[in-house]
Amino acid sequence: MANPLVADRNVEFLLYEVFRAEELCRFPAYADHSRETFDLVLQNARKFAREVLLPAYKPMDEAPARLVGTGIAVHPAMKQLYPKLVEQGMVAATRPYEVGGQQLPHVVTCLATLYGMAANLSAVGYIGLTSGAAHLIEAFGTDALKAEMMAPMYAGKWTGTMALTEPQAGSSLTDVKTAATPTDAGHYLVRGSKVFISGGDQDITENIVHLALGRIDGAPPGIKGVSLFAIPKKRREKGDLVPNDVHCAGAFHKMGWRGIPSIALNFGEGGDCHGWLVGEPNRGISYMFQMMNEARLMVGMNAIATASVAYNESLEYARTRPQGRPLSAKNPAAPQVPIIEHADVRRMLLRQKAIVEGALSLGVQTALYADTAAHAPTPEERRRAFLLLEIMTPIVKSFSAEKGFESNALAVQIHGGYGYTSEYLPEAWLRDQKLNSIHEGTTCMHSMDLLGRKVVADQGKALQLVGDEIAAATKRARAAGVDADWVAAVDRAAALVGDLTLTLGALGMAGKVDAMLLHSVDYLDLFSTVVVAWQWLLQAAVAKEKLSAGAGETAFYEGKLCAAEYWLKTELPRIDHLAHLCRTGETSYARIENAWF
Amino acid sequence: MANPLVADRNVEFLLYEVFRAEELCRFPAYADHSRETFDLVLQNARKFAREVLLPAYKPMDEAPARLVGTGIAVHPAMKQLYPKLVEQGMVAATRPYEVGGQQLPHVVTCLATLYGMAANLSAVGYIGLTSGAAHLIEAFGTDALKAEMMAPMYAGKWTGTMALTEPQAGSSLTDVKTAATPTDAGHYLVRGSKVFISGGDQDITENIVHLALGRIDGAPPGIKGVSLFAIPKKRREKGDLVPNDVHCAGAFHKMGWRGIPSIALNFGEGGDCHGWLVGEPNRGISYMFQMMNEARLMVGMNAIATASVAYNESLEYARTRPQGRPLSAKNPAAPQVPIIEHADVRRMLLRQKAIVEGALSLGVQTALYADTAAHAPTPEERRRAFLLLEIMTPIVKSFSAEKGFESNALAVQIHGGYGYTSEYLPEAWLRDQKLNSIHEGTTCMHSMDLLGRKVVADQGKALQLVGDEIAAATKRARAAGVDADWVAAVDRAAALVGDLTLTLGALGMAGKVDAMLLHSVDYLDLFSTVVVAWQWLLQAAVAKEKLSAGAGETAFYEGKLCAAEYWLKTELPRIDHLAHLCRTGETSYARIENAWF
Repeated sequence: MANPLVADRNVEFLLYEVFRAEELCRFPAYADHSRETFDLVLQNARKFAREVLLPAYKPMDEAPARLVGTGIAVHPAMKQLYPKLVEQGMVAATRPYEVGGQQLPHVVTCLATLYGMAANLSAVGYIGLTSGAAHLIEAFGTDALKAEMMAPMYAGKWTGTMALTEPQAGSSLTDVKTAATPTDAGHYLVRGSKVFISGGDQDITENIVHLALGRIDGAPPGIKGVSLFAIPKKRREKGDLVPNDVHCAGAFHKMGWRGIPSIALNFGEGGDCHGWLVGEPNRGISYMFQMMNEARLMVGMNAIATASVAYNESLEYARTRPQGRPLSAKNPAAPQVPIIEHADVRRMLLRQKAIVEGALSLGVQTALYADTAAHAPTPEERRRAFLLLEIMTPIVKSFSAEKGFESNALAVQIHGGYGYTSEYLPEAWLRDQKLNSIHEGTTCMHSMDLLGRKVVADQGKALQLVGDEIAAATKRARAAGVDADWVAAVDRAAALVGDLTLTLGALGMAGKVDAMLLHSVDYLDLFSTVVVAWQWLLQAAVAKEKLSAGAGETAFYEGKLCAAEYWLKTELPRIDHLAHLCRTGETSYARIENAWF
Repeated sequence: MANPLVADRNVEFLLYEVFRAEELCRFPAYADHSRETFDLVLQNARKFAREVLLPAYKPMDEAPARLVGTGIAVHPAMKQLYPKLVEQGMVAATRPYEVGGQQLPHVVTCLATLYGMAANLSAVGYIGLTSGAAHLIEAFGTDALKAEMMAPMYAGKWTGTMALTEPQAGSSLTDVKTAATPTDAGHYLVRGSKVFISGGDQDITENIVHLALGRIDGAPPGIKGVSLFAIPKKRREKGDLVPNDVHCAGAFHKMGWRGIPSIALNFGEGGDCHGWLVGEPNRGISYMFQMMNEARLMVGMNAIATASVAYNESLEYARTRPQGRPLSAKNPAAPQVPIIEHADVRRMLLRQKAIVEGALSLGVQTALYADTAAHAPTPEERRRAFLLLEIMTPIVKSFSAEKGFESNALAVQIHGGYGYTSEYLPEAWLRDQKLNSIHEGTTCMHSMDLLGRKVVADQGKALQLVGDEIAAATKRARAAGVDADWVAAVDRAAALVGDLTLTLGALGMAGKVDAMLLHSVDYLDLFSTVVVAWQWLLQAAVAKEKLSAGAGETAFYEGKLCAAEYWLKTELPRIDHLAHLCRTGETSYARIENAWF
């Protein structure tokens, strides 16, 4: 059986049974849509991912995009894929009609994109970056910039990138050095070097627009002096596109994501690189956060997709690979059994299922917050959803990346010796997955974003909203007849998060920021484990409702209950120890000095 | 600073300060040796690993051994390395003088080999396999076989392999099908197919001897009908080496270990493959266990080496890469600090240190058991050490592989975006490490070996001995003035292991083997965590002794105390939850059915 990439039944379950996404159509922005259009989008995306994107994945992994002369040559398959990807309409799917979009809810496009990412993450990467870059200009650019650069990106004629990282600064955007000198002609002259620019060069489209951070001459030091620029590879002169002094300085060889190049980029080596300011001077970081937040959610979805495709592959392998016999079997001449009959193989599969479907449930939940934040009729509804979106973003990103990596390693393990060979795909997906805990902010940076910013902002308003959401889920679970112990465990976990956050927040208020954040990664782990427990309780509640109503499909719903039980009994109890570490500030790594290693 | 691969100071600490390995020289077999000869061996091994093996690692990773025509062509660098490796004397280092060996203790050769594995695991792999294959013939072969096959292997003229796995059987050796028909000439005619044979073909030496499992015609089904054969690639006819109908059927493309080929091997396609029985018929598995046990310890050491070299690389990177500022720094114009100044980077480094040095301590301890089991003067001493060696083998192998993988992932993470590129080495070491939880028995198989066999054998004698060893360590720690809480935590952990094992053993006695073994991987995790805690307590005791005695080197010993504290406070407390899972038999993955996924 061909790998489904993502289980359709589970997508349907989350979208309609758990979250009732069709109710989004009550928002004016989505009024033209219905469950039928959602299903049509998903159906197209599945078919395209399975039939077109997946077959190109292995060839693209084996022969990465590479530097030829002064530019990047992508894999021939990628050149063929790109126009088809554009045809799918995903570049501007969520954008308004007036810019050429389809005004589709994020929740639908996220899931549609999930299939593509699971099939061929690099190919879909070009689309995501282009969409994000165009959206920045849509949100903050002048009409002229929109006409010149946003329109061809949304139309799929040009691609876009985000160009933040510099070699001397890495994640420390405050240290961005790229310099921009104003001219009388309206553009700036830009000089600087960027690294790790995904899709930073290609030979697919005629032009590329880099959304880059830089400093206008004389700007204040630090983050408050950083501005956002649109810097095309080719600029228009008298109607023609001419080179804009943007040069590919080299390609990185990567362990995964090998279908999309990551390059070093030089602006203005010849002193003739034109960049156009986006929005106001010195507000670049706040603008860029729009793209970064979108990108973070996409990284989270990517991590889920990469874990999902590997889970499905190992599930199929476990069902069909005969090896060994039950522990109780005495007769060596009896036929071997499929390895799914071995308890430890089921352990690894169930752990993958719990991670993949737990994270996906949270991803769908968060996409709904994004839709509500953007389009709900009242400011209160929008504000509430915005706060929830903000607090969930680091979790969707980092939980999916970290646990996804563990899940991908299990898919290799289930394949045994074959899993270590590139005759099978799990090893490639494991290599792909590792990037997700690094790009768009490392796990540590997201843990500090969560604990140092998101949970304490607004006197803990967002955290309180999470508590309300969990309380609603426990209520639903109780009503549905979910095991009382499970419900109590989630209630208790939510209370623990609240208590712990107060304790740590008080440290911060007392000026002990180092102590507050010392265990931020443990805090992120804990918070994520609880949030995913909430999602599993919700899924268990729906499963119980369906089983009680005699809805059939017993196997599907019983599987949900097993995975929920696994998460609530095996994973959730880890939070007590994590909380203890956060509270006592176990100090070994605070104390250890450079010379002691 | 060049990567030291393994910290020399730590090796000296373990060998002489913690374990007083020079006392082994009281055994008659080691009477010719002394600390001076040990140090000489280590010094040679270090120099060779750093100057010769390491520079060849990346080229060999980039251009793997490959199938050319009907045979494997190794990397040119490997051809140059092989005679130099042989010259180092490691093929027969631990073997007796009469077979050309040096009668060196395992503990010394293990550590010497550790440097080589850290530098270039594939290159060293050829030596380890050859050594193990020759040792099997030494132990069980006839004099003729020894002269014909063992001698050229120990001399480094031929290489050896272990040929167990078959495509239809995988880890299930009971299902081995390779067939052997006796002839009047003394040899057997062998027909069969093997897969994943490391070093199964090469163009370095004139011949290769495969130590292969097969069945003599008419042998009983199952494991009791499996015999051991020596099957050379070329056999001797009238003094000349002629082809022996052994064919390379293909090479696997692997995610790591790319310097040594893993191939599919066919015996007797032309009906003319001669194999020689080693030992008695139908006792192949018991013989092969000698090689498998040696190989398992070597896999454990390999995992430690691969984690060690990556730890050292990330430590150096963290000390020299400037990025960002302390949380409390307000001035963006202040210079950036090396990333080791960030607490979370120190967390990742300390976790690596705790894993690498904890596992290595256990590895050294276990090698000492091997030496004592082989050469102690009294049968009681030998028996005691043998039982400890047996129980520690699955732990050294699987703990190092599983936690080593986590440690290698942290080394990538510390390197940030650069860690994901092959311009740096951590990504390659991460790829290498993944094999160690798969080959020589998966983690699950070792967990069943530990819980289903090792801890319950002899009415729990081995477990009792582990308890005695831990009690000796806690006594030493108390006397040295180690924090009483740390000592109490290890005491309590040892008692918990004892209790839990009784509970689970009782299930087994009652015939509930499935329930006993359901959480065997959790049990292995728990047991390993406790055993490594013991090793950290021991290291902390020695550090305290040295600090109290005013031995100087405060930084080194304080580092040991920090890592011990990390393990005892952050890792050890996980055992309570693991024990709870084992006891209650949390049943989600026992219950879940094939169709429910």
